[in-house]
Parts: sequence; structure tokens; C-alpha cells
Amino acid sequence: MKYLIIYAHPNPKSFNHAIKEIVGENLRKAGNNFETRDLYGIGFSPELSNNDFVAWQRGQALVDINREQDYIRNSDILIFIHPIWWFNMPAILKGYIDRVFSYGFAYNVNENGPYGLLTDKKAILINTTGSAEENYIKYGYKEALRKTIEDGTFGFCGLKIIMHKYFYAVPYVTDQARQKMLEELQGISL
Amino acid sequence: MKYLIIYAHPNPKSFNHAIKEIVGENLRKAGNNFETRDLYGIGFSPELSNNDFVAWQRGQALVDINREQDYIRNSDILIFIHPIWWFNMPAILKGYIDRVFSYGFAYNVNENGPYGLLTDKKAILINTTGSAEENYIKYGYKEALRKTIEDGTFGFCGLKIIMHKYFYAVPYVTDQARQKMLEELQGISL
Repeated sequence: MKYLIIYAHPNPKSFNHAIKEIVGENLRKAGNNFETRDLYGIGFSPELSNNDFVAWQRGQALVDINREQDYIRNSDILIFIHPIWWFNMPAILKGYIDRVFSYGFAYNVNENGPYGLLTDKKAILINTTGSAEENYIKYGYKEALRKTIEDGTFGFCGLKIIMHKYFYAVPYVTDQARQKMLEELQGISL
Repeated sequence: MKYLIIYAHPNPKSFNHAIKEIVGENLRKAGNNFETRDLYGIGFSPELSNNDFVAWQRGQALVDINREQDYIRNSDILIFIHPIWWFNMPAILKGYIDRVFSYGFAYNVNENGPYGLLTDKKAILINTTGSAEENYIKYGYKEALRKTIEDGTFGFCGLKIIMHKYFYAVPYVTDQARQKMLEELQGISL
């Protein structure tokens, strides 16, 4: 199995960065091959432009997008690591989806409607949130993210989500609680 | 009343562009003042960086963000015009929210939790979608967007949404149907 970590956080001292490091460590320990795309690190451009549309119409992709699609083509399991901001992804990752998960690469349309093209791959989602799990459940945000991100985005492209792990209220819990979250993650074999 | 149009689409021949033009025409006809922020046109940078975090901690905002916040401060009604891509905003607008709707400007936190700071303003949302209304309702996407965008984003900041207009399946309907949508919009007085 080949893994691809897609990571989006601007701060190398962040909790998300620690998550990325531990996931990489777990993969190394298990002897798994993996690549990492640090979207801030590589300076990914998230603004879908008219040039993207023109390329799609020709059945092509722009150079920077083709490179990211190759990373996906060469992977079996995609691991997305990012904070939830405003109940969705950070813009840099939202733009990665807008541009890389393109028509003809991630999905297609026939007379029965759209269908996913990434059906031979799986996804793992690891997210941090700014609010507590009880709020996410009580106010319906967890269900809304299940619709918009799990079903409407990754599921739409045929990816099977084998794990969606949330670490809740990360900025507001104690250092000890954050440490426990990371230890829990260390125990998850990938 | 002062209006602010916040518009996100890369193509000046798009249906979203036509929407923006008609909304502007309606405002002019009614004698209302308005400004337009065309996020692609102004080259807005959607990637929230560490510099944004540092500025927030000092109770400040970066120069480009302060300018956008001034446009909001000077407005009573914000009109967001954009397509729905992957059940959220285009990345360039998602990044506008990530960066401009910042802690201390759009919301604050006290001992009771977070509270919105834009309570003296209202919002109008006008969106296009790639799929039909019946799918949006049947599969729960409309409700999910009500949670994540209406409640969890604009409502969180205290903005009262006075209209959320969807134009569904825009790429797949007939030219005539699209023309009817624009005529419907012309009839809406703002």
C-alpha cells in the first residue's frame, strides 16, 4: 500500500503539524511507503482560474495540477490532515479540491449522472476543531460535515473513507489533554 | 443603506458574472450606494498565514485584510455572489472568510463562549449549483449548507441573512431557463 499525506496548516509549531509527524512515524514504523504534500510548504495555488477550465475542456490539466494528480494516481490511501475552519477546509486545501479533483480525473458524468473515478483508493481524514464534540453533535455540524465533505466531496469521487478522526476543541483543552490525543494517535496503526 | 457585493468567479462570461451585473443594476435603479469586491479581480490572497495569526494576537490585521474589513465596516448589507463548489465556497472566497472574518473583528469570545460582532449588518447570499434542487433537498445538502454557511459562518458572526437565493443546475438547464433565472433576479428589488 502506498500512502499520500495531504497536509494543510501554516504553522510548523501547530498541533496539526504534530499530527502529521506522528502519522508519518506510524507509517515508517509499519514499513509503509508514503509521500507528503504540505500545501503551504509547496506554495500550492488554490485559486481555480479560467486556465483550469480551458485545460479540462481539452481533457488536460495544468502542470502544477498534473503533478498533484500523479501523486494521487500513485497512491492507494490518501490521508488528509487539516483543521476545520468555518466548518470546512482551510482555503488552500479547498482550492486543492477545487483544482486537483477535476472533471475527468476525480469524477465523470454519463447519462445516469456523475460517478467517481477514484474508486480504487481509500481516504483517511484527521481534523482538529475549535469547538467541543458535544456542540458538533448537538448543533448538527458533524452530520453537516459528513454530508459536505465525506459524502459530497470524497465519496462523490468514489473514495472510500476508512477513518475520520476528529480532535475536538484543541485550542481550549489542557496541554495534558492534547498530549493524550497525540498518544492516542501513536497507537493507531496505519 | 450601503451595500457591499462580494463576488467570486474567475470567468467574466459566467452566469455568476451576469448575476453580479444585474444585482448592481438593481441597486443603481433603486438609488442605493454600493461597492463591489471582485475577489479574482483584486487578486485576493486566500491563504491564511502565520502573519495573520501574529496580527490577530496583537489585535491588528494585515494591510490587505484591514482594507477588506473597512469595506465591511462601511456597509450595512453584504451580498455574497458565488458558485457552490464541493458544497462550499470557491477557495478564494473561503480564504476571504478565513482571513477577513477574523477573531476580534467578526466575532469574539467571553466566558459564555463565542459571540458575533457583525450584528448591525445583514447578508444576502446568491449561489449557483451544479445539481438540481431535488438532489439538494433529498440528499440533505441544502440543510448541510444551512448549518455550515448560514448558521456556522455568517450567523456565527451575528449577520442576519435576509435572503439566500439558489439558482440550481445552472450548467445543465436550457439557455431559456437561464434567461428566466436572470429575469427573476431583475424583479427582486434590493
